[in-house]
Order: sequence, then structure tokens, then C-alpha cells
Amino acid sequence: MQPVNLAEKLQQVTRHWDPHVVADYNDNDVMVVRFQGTFPFHLHESTDDFFLVLEGEMQMDLEGTSHLVRAGELFIVPKGVTHRPRATAECKVLLIEPKGEPNTGDPATAAAKPRI
Amino acid sequence: MQPVNLAEKLQQVTRHWDPHVVADYNDNDVMVVRFQGTFPFHLHESTDDFFLVLEGEMQMDLEGTSHLVRAGELFIVPKGVTHRPRATAECKVLLIEPKGEPNTGDPATAAAKPRI
Repeated sequence: MQPVNLAEKLQQVTRHWDPHVVADYNDNDVMVVRFQGTFPFHLHESTDDFFLVLEGEMQMDLEGTSHLVRAGELFIVPKGVTHRPRATAECKVLLIEPKGEPNTGDPATAAAKPRI
Repeated sequence: MQPVNLAEKLQQVTRHWDPHVVADYNDNDVMVVRFQGTFPFHLHESTDDFFLVLEGEMQMDLEGTSHLVRAGELFIVPKGVTHRPRATAECKVLLIEPKGEPNTGDPATAAAKPRI
């Protein structure tokens, strides 16, 4: 039970789209991630998806629309909604998803989510 | 489904220890709160308590110990752990708790958690 410094944790993350778990909140993984480039479109059938931009900005593409999400802004994608985050320059994000939820919505293509 | 700017939402909050809901994540309220002064010691019997300091700093007092939590740091109090946040100068916080959870752990003394 210690404070978790998100910037320090992000220094341990080197690759893009590679979420690392920094804390637990009930049955959820609290993660830090670096975004750069374009993630595949996907959806989560049984959970919302929580994004808080810590540094930089990203575009959240939905079907038929898109939202710019800047540092200090959160964006919650409701369950079942197809989406893809995209970032031209690197964007640092706090991500919350239920434990065991594949970040791509598909276990076959999901990232490992190691703990740091 | 829109980005939520936390600083803008906090401008709508005038009182201390008065959490306002800005988004939903599954069955949780995502809230912004201004802390200043000393909150009562309490615990949540059935949930963890999620704090992310957005601006300023707070002290998280536990039984027998205390942690300084600064901007950019999160602190998650596990369920059943007695705690009280405390801040000499104003501290702005992102708070996540399950819907219906009293912020004091006790419905008789809990804040209303209005939506903004």
C-alpha cells in the first residue's frame, strides 16, 4: 500500500501499445500505456474501457465519429462500442480494464499486461 | 460519449469533500473532488477506494502510518482498511468508488455525489 507515481512507472515502459499494471482496484487492472500510431478497431463485449490522458493527446476513433482527447481528459468507451485509439505523437495514458480482459477485445491478439 | 475535461469539471465544484460524478465506468462513479482539511477516519467494507491526485498534494493517513500523495500519483486503499485523506492546502482528486458506496463508509454521513 504505497503511492504509485505514474510518470516513474511510465519510464519502465518502452514499447507502444504495451500496457503495464501498476495497481489493482477491486477486480480491475490499473495500467499505464504509451500510445503512438494506430490501434486496431475493436470492442469489449462485457466492459467499459477507461482512458485518462496523462501527457500528450490522442484521437479516439469511433464508428462514424472521432474525438480528440487531451492531457487531463478522460474518455470512457461504453461496452460494446467499436473504437480505436490513435496518436500521431506519443501519448501517455492511464488505462483501466477488468482483470483478464484482452486489450484488443480478443485473447488471440491481446497484450500480456505485465506488472511493474 | 465525449471527452471529460477534469479541470473544467472541477471549476463547477466549490466546496471541499463534495464529490461530483463526471463519468461512469461499469458500476463505478468516476468523480472529481476538492480536498482541504481533515476527513474523518473511515473504511469501506466491500470495496477498494481509488484516489488519483490531479493537483496539489494530500496526506493519506492509515492506522499507524501515513503517505504523502502528490500530483500524478495514485493511491488505492484496499477494502477494509481504515484511512483518512488530509490536505493542508487544497488538493484536487479523481476518485473512483462503486455506485451507491457512501464516501464516508456510512450512509448516514455520506455526501450526495451529484452529477456534473
